[in-house]
Parts: sequence; C-alpha cells; structure tokens
Amino acid sequence: MSFNTFGHVFRVTTWGESHGPALGCTVDGCPPGVEIDEAQIQHWLDRRKPGQNKYTTQRREPDQVRILSGVFEGKTTGSPVQLMIENTDQRSKDYGEIAETFRPGHADITYWQKYGHRDYRGGGRSSARETAARVAAGGLARAALAKLVPGLVIRGYMTRMGEHALEGTRDLDEIENNPFWVPSAKTAETWAAYLDGLRKSGSSVGAEVEVTATGVPAGLGAPIYAKLDTDLAAAMMSINAVKGVEIGEGMAAARLTGEANADEIFLGNEGEPVFSSNHSGGILGGISTGQEVVVRFAVKPTSSILTPRASITKSGKPTEVVTKGRHDPCVGIRAVPVGEAMMACVLLDHLLLDRAQTGGERGQIG
Amino acid sequence: MSFNTFGHVFRVTTWGESHGPALGCTVDGCPPGVEIDEAQIQHWLDRRKPGQNKYTTQRREPDQVRILSGVFEGKTTGSPVQLMIENTDQRSKDYGEIAETFRPGHADITYWQKYGHRDYRGGGRSSARETAARVAAGGLARAALAKLVPGLVIRGYMTRMGEHALEGTRDLDEIENNPFWVPSAKTAETWAAYLDGLRKSGSSVGAEVEVTATGVPAGLGAPIYAKLDTDLAAAMMSINAVKGVEIGEGMAAARLTGEANADEIFLGNEGEPVFSSNHSGGILGGISTGQEVVVRFAVKPTSSILTPRASITKSGKPTEVVTKGRHDPCVGIRAVPVGEAMMACVLLDHLLLDRAQTGGERGQIG
Amino acid sequence: MSFNTFGHVFRVTTWGESHGPALGCTVDGCPPGVEIDEAQIQHWLDRRKPGQNKYTTQRREPDQVRILSGVFEGKTTGSPVQLMIENTDQRSKDYGEIAETFRPGHADITYWQKYGHRDYRGGGRSSARETAARVAAGGLARAALAKLVPGLVIRGYMTRMGEHALEGTRDLDEIENNPFWVPSAKTAETWAAYLDGLRKSGSSVGAEVEVTATGVPAGLGAPIYAKLDTDLAAAMMSINAVKGVEIGEGMAAARLTGEANADEIFLGNEGEPVFSSNHSGGILGGISTGQEVVVRFAVKPTSSILTPRASITKSGKPTEVVTKGRHDPCVGIRAVPVGEAMMACVLLDHLLLDRAQTGGERGQIG
Amino acid sequence: MSFNTFGHVFRVTTWGESHGPALGCTVDGCPPGVEIDEAQIQHWLDRRKPGQNKYTTQRREPDQVRILSGVFEGKTTGSPVQLMIENTDQRSKDYGEIAETFRPGHADITYWQKYGHRDYRGGGRSSARETAARVAAGGLARAALAKLVPGLVIRGYMTRMGEHALEGTRDLDEIENNPFWVPSAKTAETWAAYLDGLRKSGSSVGAEVEVTATGVPAGLGAPIYAKLDTDLAAAMMSINAVKGVEIGEGMAAARLTGEANADEIFLGNEGEPVFSSNHSGGILGGISTGQEVVVRFAVKPTSSILTPRASITKSGKPTEVVTKGRHDPCVGIRAVPVGEAMMACVLLDHLLLDRAQTGGERGQIG
Repeated sequence: MSFNTFGHVFRVTTWGESHGPALGCTVDGCPPGVEIDEAQIQHWLDRRKPGQNKYTTQRREPDQVRILSGVFEGKTTGSPVQLMIENTDQRSKDYGEIAETFRPGHADITYWQKYGHRDYRGGGRSSARETAARVAAGGLARAALAKLVPGLVIRGYMTRMGEHALEGTRDLDEIENNPFWVPSAKTAETWAAYLDGLRKSGSSVGAEVEVTATGVPAGLGAPIYAKLDTDLAAAMMSINAVKGVEIGEGMAAARLTGEANADEIFLGNEGEPVFSSNHSGGILGGISTGQEVVVRFAVKPTSSILTPRASITKSGKPTEVVTKGRHDPCVGIRAVPVGEAMMACVLLDHLLLDRAQTGGERGQIG
Repeated sequence: MSFNTFGHVFRVTTWGESHGPALGCTVDGCPPGVEIDEAQIQHWLDRRKPGQNKYTTQRREPDQVRILSGVFEGKTTGSPVQLMIENTDQRSKDYGEIAETFRPGHADITYWQKYGHRDYRGGGRSSARETAARVAAGGLARAALAKLVPGLVIRGYMTRMGEHALEGTRDLDEIENNPFWVPSAKTAETWAAYLDGLRKSGSSVGAEVEVTATGVPAGLGAPIYAKLDTDLAAAMMSINAVKGVEIGEGMAAARLTGEANADEIFLGNEGEPVFSSNHSGGILGGISTGQEVVVRFAVKPTSSILTPRASITKSGKPTEVVTKGRHDPCVGIRAVPVGEAMMACVLLDHLLLDRAQTGGERGQIG
Repeated sequence: MSFNTFGHVFRVTTWGESHGPALGCTVDGCPPGVEIDEAQIQHWLDRRKPGQNKYTTQRREPDQVRILSGVFEGKTTGSPVQLMIENTDQRSKDYGEIAETFRPGHADITYWQKYGHRDYRGGGRSSARETAARVAAGGLARAALAKLVPGLVIRGYMTRMGEHALEGTRDLDEIENNPFWVPSAKTAETWAAYLDGLRKSGSSVGAEVEVTATGVPAGLGAPIYAKLDTDLAAAMMSINAVKGVEIGEGMAAARLTGEANADEIFLGNEGEPVFSSNHSGGILGGISTGQEVVVRFAVKPTSSILTPRASITKSGKPTEVVTKGRHDPCVGIRAVPVGEAMMACVLLDHLLLDRAQTGGERGQIG
Repeated sequence: MSFNTFGHVFRVTTWGESHGPALGCTVDGCPPGVEIDEAQIQHWLDRRKPGQNKYTTQRREPDQVRILSGVFEGKTTGSPVQLMIENTDQRSKDYGEIAETFRPGHADITYWQKYGHRDYRGGGRSSARETAARVAAGGLARAALAKLVPGLVIRGYMTRMGEHALEGTRDLDEIENNPFWVPSAKTAETWAAYLDGLRKSGSSVGAEVEVTATGVPAGLGAPIYAKLDTDLAAAMMSINAVKGVEIGEGMAAARLTGEANADEIFLGNEGEPVFSSNHSGGILGGISTGQEVVVRFAVKPTSSILTPRASITKSGKPTEVVTKGRHDPCVGIRAVPVGEAMMACVLLDHLLLDRAQTGGERGQIG
C-alpha cells in the first residue's frame, strides 16, 4: 500500500512530524558496498537547510543527520539504512487560536476531515520539514549512483519566480552563486529585488523548478505503469505545494505539430543513437533514451501571507487568518534540493529495477 | 514491483500487444456485490473505439470485451475480474523496412535498447491499443463507484488542440455533441476545420485534455507518497504520449501570488466547508477537499507524419522515416476516455484505501 | 496489496473460477529473451492434469494453455505474459441442494461470510482448479531458470500418504514410474493398495509432499521479510488444503540439540563451502547456502467423503452432507506438480530480486 | 519489494543491527485515533527482554522504547509511527578470530556470500535482537486491535522443549507463572531441570511454540495469495531459527482420513456457525471461520554450543568453533512473545485489509 514509502527497489519510507522529537527515513534496498558517511548526507541537508539567508524561513534547525543502521565500517551492508534528524527548534509557544482554525490553502482541513485529528504545531506531517528526510535519502542515493553510474550528474535550479521567468540561456556555473539556484546572474539580481518587495509586503509567490540528469544510461524505466516519467511525475507531485509536472516539452507539447516535436535520430561516433533535439526530455515510451532527462514542476505560493483570508474554525465559526512571524515568501526555493533528491532516488531505483528485469543487458545497434 | 499494475487496492494489471491474439486486464481488489455486465463495459470501450470518424485512425476493431472471471450471476464476487478483448484486425502485411527502422519519437528505440527485441507489428506493448484495457477497467471502476458513491460524476474533454485553445466558457452539455469532446460548439467548428487541414497535409498536432470529478467525498488520499494528486499524476503520465500533468492551477501556480492563489473557506448550509474558488483543484496536502477534482494533461503530437524525418536502422544505417497509410492526426482525442478511465480507477482505489486507513470515519466540523 | 498476486519481481496473478469460461495467469516481470512456447508449458500442465488414472478426479479437462501476450517470435519480450486455459468441462447439472449447503472443511462457508456470495459450481475461486494457473506460471519460470541457472533441478514427490510414510531411501529414478510420484517402487505398491481401499470405501486421506531444488546458487533470499524460506512457506501454504510447511528438519528441529542439528562447514575443491549435513534445508538466515533446498508440506484429506457429516444450510437449517460422484481420495497427489511450480516461481523471483539487490556480486571465500 | 517490510496495510519495516546505535521499526498504516503510549509498548518489550532469568541470555539491555512520530496527544494520527530502541550494551571487545570465522548454523556465511560483508558484532542484521522491533510493533497492533475488536485475545506458549512435549491438558492460567510460558505447572518443573542440565553442559535445544487467538471475527483473509494462513506462515517463518509452521492439525493432517479431519457445522444460539472441532485451526480457504486461530512453529536449537564444530574462515582456512560466554540454551523461549507480536500484526493487517475489500459487510446465515 505504501502510504509513506516510495520506490520499487530502493524504497524510502519517511516518518516524523515538524514538531515531534525527530524525523527521518528508513531506506530499504540500498545495494551493499556503497561508501557513505554522515558528512556526505549532511552536505545535501545543509543545501536545503532553512535559515540560510533572508529569503527562506528563519527557523533555525541544525538538521544534523545520524546514520543509525545499515552502514558498517563506512559501507552500506544491504540492510535498511535509518537516517534520523532530531528536531531541536521546537519552540514552546501558545498556538491558541491557530490550533482551532483552518488555514486557507493548507492541509489542516483535509487532515482533519480524513484523520479526525489536528496537529497544529507547524503542520505536523504535512509540513515541508518532511522533505528533509527526502534530501537525506537523496544523499544516500547519490552515493550509490556515484558507484554504479560514474558520470551521472543531477542539477536542480529555478526557472521561474512568479511573473519573472529565467532570462537568457542557462549558465549552469551560476547555479551555486545565488540563493535561488538560478542559472543566470542577471536573473538572480532581478529576483532578489522582486523577492525583497514580496517579503516586505508579507506576500508570497510561486516558482518553477527544473531538475535535469545527464549521463543517464539508456534503458531505464519499466513500462507500462512504472515508466520512468510516470515515477518522476509521482515523485515530484508528492512534494509539498507542487501542482504541475512536465517532462521535456511538458504542457507545451499540446501546442506543437509532429514536425516541430520530432527528435530526429543519427548515429554517434561510438555507435550510440544521437538525437537532433530533446523535446522528449530524454524519455520515450517511459524508457530513458540516454539523453538528458528533463523534469520541471511548479510550486504554488505559500498561503502564509499578511493579507487576511476568510476561513472557519473547527467548530465552524467564521474567522480570518493572517500569518505573521517567520515566513518563507517563496517556498519554491527550498524545493530545488528536494527535487534533486527525488531525481536521485528515482534514477537509482530504476537502475536497480532494470537489473532485476534485464540483468543490465541491452539491445545493440549496429 | 508492479511493472504493469497500477492501484493500491483496486489493482489493474494490463497485458497484451497491439498485434497479438488478445489484450486485456486482470482487475484484483474490486469489492464484491458490484452489478456489472459486458454491455456496461462495452459502452465505455465504444466511446474510445478507433475508426469512428475521420479524425481518428481508420483501423477498425470491434473491441468486444469478454468477462472471463470474477463475476457470477451479474455481480462481482471479490475474485479477480479478467476482461479480455480479442484483436481482430491483425492485417498480415509486409513490415519489411519498418521492422528494421526506429521511428523518431516512438518507443521503438528504447524498447530495443532495454529489452533487446523489436515488436515491429504496430508498436507491440507501447501501442496505444493498451489503453483499451484501461478503459475496460475504468468501466468496472465506474460501476463500483456508482454503488459506493452515488452522484460522483467524471467528465473528460479537450481544452486545447495545437494552437487553438478552448474558446469561451465550458458548456458541458456540448461534450457529447462533437468528435473532440470539447465543451463548446464554436470551438468544435474551429477545430474541425483545423484538423481537416492537418490531416490533408499529413501533419499531426498535440492536445490538452481536462478530466474532472464532482461529488468526490472529502478525505481521499494517503499522504505522503500515495497522495491523491500524486497518484493522479502518475496515472495520467503513464498514458501514451503524455508529457505534462497539472492539478488545479497546475504550472500556472508558479506565476501566482499567495493572495491570488488562496481558496478562502466558508461554512456551507450543511456544516460542510465551502471554498471561494478552486485553485487547488480539489486537493490539499494530497487529500480531497470535497470540491471538484481537476486534472489536466498534455498529449504530444504523434510522430507519424508525411514529412520525412531522419533516423537510423537497427544495424545503424542512416535512413528516413515517412508515415503513410492509416493515421491519427490528433491522438489526444482518443486520450479523453482514457483519462476518464484513469480518474475512475484512481478514485475507486482511494475510496477503498481510505476504508482500510480510517474505516470511513471523518473529523466533523462544528 | 496483492490479493491474487505472488512474487516480488516475477509476479504471478492468477484469475478464474472452476466453472467460469476460462482461468489463467498474468505473469509480469519475466525477463526478456526466454525461449518459450505453448508445448513447453503444456508439458507441465499435463503432469498435473486430472483424470489420468483412477487415483485422481475423473473430471476430464484438456487444460490446453494459450499464450496470449508477452511472447514474440518464440521469446519473451519483457511484457506481461498471459496464459489462458479455457474451461471445457462445465457440465450443466442441478446443483440444487448443494448450492444452499455449506460443506464441512470447505471454504464455502468462509467465502459466504466474507464476500456474501456463493459460487456453488465446484468451489469457484477456492477450487483446486486455480492451481492449473500456477503450474502454467511454473512452466514459464522453469524456462527462465533454464536460461539463467543451467543445471538447476526441481523435484517434487510424495513422502507420506496417510499412515504410510515413504519406506527406505529415496530412489529419485522411481518418481516418474508411479502415479504418486513417490521415489520408491515398493512404497508405490503399498500406497496403491491402500488408496484402492480408501477409494472403494468413499474415504479420503492426507499426504505429505517434499519439493527439492539442487543447483541453487548461494545468496538467494532477501532478509528479513522476504527470506527465501519465508517466501517458500507462504507459497506452499497458499496451495489449497495445505496445513503445514517445513524447511529442512522442519518441526523436528524442536526435538534436536545444537550438537545434533549442526551442519559443519568444510572447504570444497573449488573454494566453495561444503556442509557435512543439511539440517538447514539449504537456507541459513533466509539465504540459500548453495546446498539442496528442501521444503515439505502437508495436505489435509479432502472432506468430500461418503460418510455423512453434519452441516447447515445458508438459511441456517441443519443438514447432512455426503459426497458422491467423481472423487479424489488423495488430493495430495495432484499437489506435487503444484509444489514444484511454486518452487520454480519462488526461485526465479529471488534470482531476479538478487540481481536488483546485489547485481549478482558475491563475497568470495579464500 | 519489501525486503524489510511485512504487512499489506499495517506495514512494519524493521531496521537496525544488534550492535549499532539503535534499532526499531517504522509502522505505516496504523489507523488514527488509537490510544497508545510508550508504557504500553514497553510492557510487551519487557516480556521479551533478555537477562530476566537464568534460562535466557545474560546480555542486559533495558530495551527502552521511544515513540518518535505518529502519536500526538496520546493517540495515533494516521502518520507513520517510529519506535526506536537504543542499543546500550554494546560491549567493546576483541572479536578477533570470530570476525574471520563462519559459525556453523549461523547466517554469517550466507550474508557473506550474498552481501560480501561481515558484521561480526553479534550477528548484525541476522541477530535475534531484530525481534525486539517486532515486539514493539506488536504492542501497537494490540492497542489498535483492542479498539477495533474488543475481546480478541492472543496467547503464546511453548508446547515442546527438545524431547519433552507439553504434558497433560493446557492450563492457560499457568502461562505467566513460569519462565517458559508453558501452560502446565508440572511441565515447567520438568523443563527447568532439563534446561539446567543443558545449560551446564553448554548444549542447546529446540522448541515448539503455539500461538492462538480467540475472538477473531469470521471473514479475515484475502484469497488466494494473501490468505490468513499464508500470511501467518510467512510471519512465523520469518522469525530467526524457525524451520516449520503449522496451522491447526499442521503436518499431522497428512496422516488423517477425511472422516477424522472433518469439522462438522452446527448452528449456534445467535445464528452463528458452531464447529464440532477445530482441525482447521480456525481457517478455511484462507479465511477465518470465527473459531480460535491456532498456529505452531518450531525453533531450531542455537548453534552456540561448547562442543567444537568444524568450520572455515573467510580466507578458507579450516578451523573449529566453540561458543563460550553469555549463552541462551533454548532460544525458543524468547520466540514466544515474538510469535504473539506477529499474530497481532497479521490479524490487525487483515482486519484493515478486509475493510478495504468488503467494507466489513458480511454474508448472513439464516
């Protein structure tokens, strides 16, 4: 049933609430012999960590990961890997009214309707803090990929913040140089000014994130219902606040003709197929082509804004909700490392799945 | 691992190739006591059936479904339901060159790379004929939903054909009056002319399809990794040629501010929450709100066009591919009933899943 | 949830009732490139087929298998393989009273309690006819094993019929020479006389079946909850009428001391471990050791006997049940090929699973 | 794939090694609203805890459980419940030779062969310490069962220790009065003397454990491959050192005639079926009948004995293995609470599964 598990072979079960004692993930199915330590995973968690600059929430968590199982003498053993992050910033405060009110655009109301309970302390299970566990799992997945597919590179970056799209061509070297992981120095400047304004006015804005992977071998994906694109769509849509997912051309494919959308095929120097373009986003019939895999997703603006919105309380009383205090005007920023982590998990999972299906054998061209 | 199975409780495994003796689906987990017969399922298959008008492929298959198991005395028994459709239009013909050539934009090349085999007879497992099995399963899901949630209504329609978006407001009564299932008589006329041109020139075009469900109870969806939107995204992305999936605002959510995107909450006459708008597409935190569930997806244009495209053969020889003969200029049209079927399967699945999780109990407001 | 599916990678979903139009199995996850045709599968079905001698039911079904998908040009493609067997011996008869009465020891009453329906035509889904689908799947599994692990041999035979245990040492060459698949000519004679008596008096008797596999590579099994012995236990217990499963020493292990139960380890000529004995049944910690894998299971006597037994009707009326007509005094006989089929499916499944987990790499001794 | 997960809906993933920092389980699918705290779970862990008397290992672990997630204000929320037990008795010692030698009858050698690594510190993942996590999960399952099926009672006890079977009739009141959980004061005395002798001589012995459940509703079990007995067999066989599993008559069913094995059916005072006997162990066709569910399993003797046994080292050198130090002459004793925990988990799982399948509706008699 897999309520809180994703993956077919590399199976990640996340657990924990935003204000409980800890959260983490149980990773089952990681191959044995992968070199890993806490520092490697911490590297990716630090990337996601809130409170790093004025554009993300000021909640400060060290988000220190501990490996509790599945690793011995610096290598995975093939047993489940437990990655735990203790919650340290559980401020005792008076939730009072909030505990009774449903916030528009939040999962408060649907959790209440489904489960009949309300974890008012920061969103409980529906909090974006759950994504820390995903990033930890992604760190492990990257270590396994580094062993199994040297040269595979995953990159995430923002391509839109509200009304401002990424300007000009992607300059991947710029990704690490700005707080938005946007591959353009110029865009980063525009966005910084834009977001400053939003933050000051207590507003929020949506974002579009693109995650790519190069060096992905051809042949990954398990048609019909575990296609590589199907699993990527599910992985990205499961991230908090995501409302749309695209592969390659994405929604724009609806506007194209067959002539415009065709990726013509040529023979490369080493007998491999080479494509004239990548409208497909590196996936045909649910199976990787060997081209760059390209996924995009949209993150909605957080509903935590200063402008009052109408709502009701648990007892059905009309009320208004205003969000003051620590505040993340563009939650999409922090979705970048999460999207990367999901990409890493899905690719590793399909690599292992393919070993089961085909033993890694391939049809040869030529 | 579920290569060819989707669903958690209502589990549909499709099988069969476009030119094998038959195809179908094994449906496990259908509740007992659902009234069903072949005619009910046939109704939905006929809707999808090719060859109905000049806009869809002229391949003519009666697509006659047979119930081989799981139904006794007109009701499901709780045992697996086998729905089989025999392939009757398996023209013997000379595939000759096609058998050796990879068609650009087709899964030919990735199936070859992964599985080392080539079913040149019309695409084999990657053919859109597989979706007939989905529509059959969807027919059964609808019958079960009719018993368990009377009043639930699923509607699919096109909202874009290439450069032409749906014009004006949706007139749902028009859906059945035109070959595009577009909810607008005026748009249907525009599209008819447009598609005529495309067909004559041997071109093709993409499409956008929207599928909605009204009467969905609040509380469906199993966070974190079996969210209702996650499963809908996976279901739609698994359909042939789909490149993007959106829930509610979809990709446009990236452009919005928190103020614009908020669905404010009021109390309805019967103590239920009422929302001022539906940017969320009826899903918050992965759980249905009780509002209309809204999913959209983009179908890329088929690569079967008259204009020659460069490609290579299995032996690596450069060649050109031109598609003559029977031809579907907008495959998105036939994706409408498929999208509806996937919606039906996902909703039923989550209804059953929710019975397991909560026993159907709900948190009360007021 | 897998109500009607078994296996992790090689996933077999059986469907069909004893008196419906057909039954069969959908096999997902079979590796591509396995040579298979209907004759190979038919070979195993014929072995199980009823009506072959006076000791098994006189119902005569040709049990002719058809491959409907997943095989092209004599090889598996990696797509689901549909194996269908049409039911031809669906005698129209008056079930009258039987349709209303629960037979003691049958699943009639529990299916009624659970599903609220009664398929009185020969047991419906709970009929042993379902095992024909397992045998078909097992035939495919054997073909895949023959490709992947040449030299692996699976053997099933009876080791007890009622009060008569197998006498003397196993003579495996005798297995195919008698209707009981008992590895002893002398025992076969004893049992023939014994069963004749039972048949004439309208009685029935239980049986014990042993299934072994030699040539199983070390390292199969996925601890903790997909151990090889765990999965074998589940596979055998799922067969109709099975009430106990043993690995190696089985229940007798409770009687032994550590000294008596130890399998000492030596080094073989090719650097492999060699064991002094096989109390473990070839499995330690849920993983195969490379020794012979040994599984045993007990089949209860059928409750279809001439002696009247007290029961009740659906309307709660007391009654008596007597079984006349075609009759199988020792249903355990026909369980032999079914046990073999389950062994084949489990071993193939774990071979594929191990490829996913470890890529087939092994720790070396020496 | 579920390497380390069991259950369909109530899914328990255990993690951790005997000498790592901690071990535990991630429980997904527990219904919301179940009252639970650490003390309740601790109660069951204390029952299993080693070092309680001279008959079980002298390793002393407080085995203190912590609930890290999924419980808020004393009730489950429907989110994953993380139960963690820190390992405190990780004595630093010189494993020296042991680290290089395979112990006969241990999983050392198969883990090495499969995973290419050796966790010599007390068995790593294959250690019986893993069962502490099962007992913790079982404590949660019991709490949920207490809410959903009041009156359901699970009891485990030993029925054999080596050559000594349980004498006389079961006196269930005696179970808690002796260190063997044997339902007979007289047998407890015999066993105490017997085990004293074994312990002094550095020997070990096997055991047989029976676990029963009364108050189980009719209708639990999901034929064909998630039958209640199938899942119980898998659950028990997955426990360390278990070599055989029986339902009701178990292996003895092979010796019986149909007359002897029949459970005749009568009508009870409240319209429910009443059976004359319980050869079936409360399960017919994989579905519970409403009678007592009866499972038995055999635990092999530990191979940790004073008598030297031949073995080899990782480098292939012949050697001898002798086990000194803390020592458990009959590991079967501690399997009793583990068997109970597995019973609790399987029953709860099937209760939830049945809600999904049938919504809890039942066929009525009369």
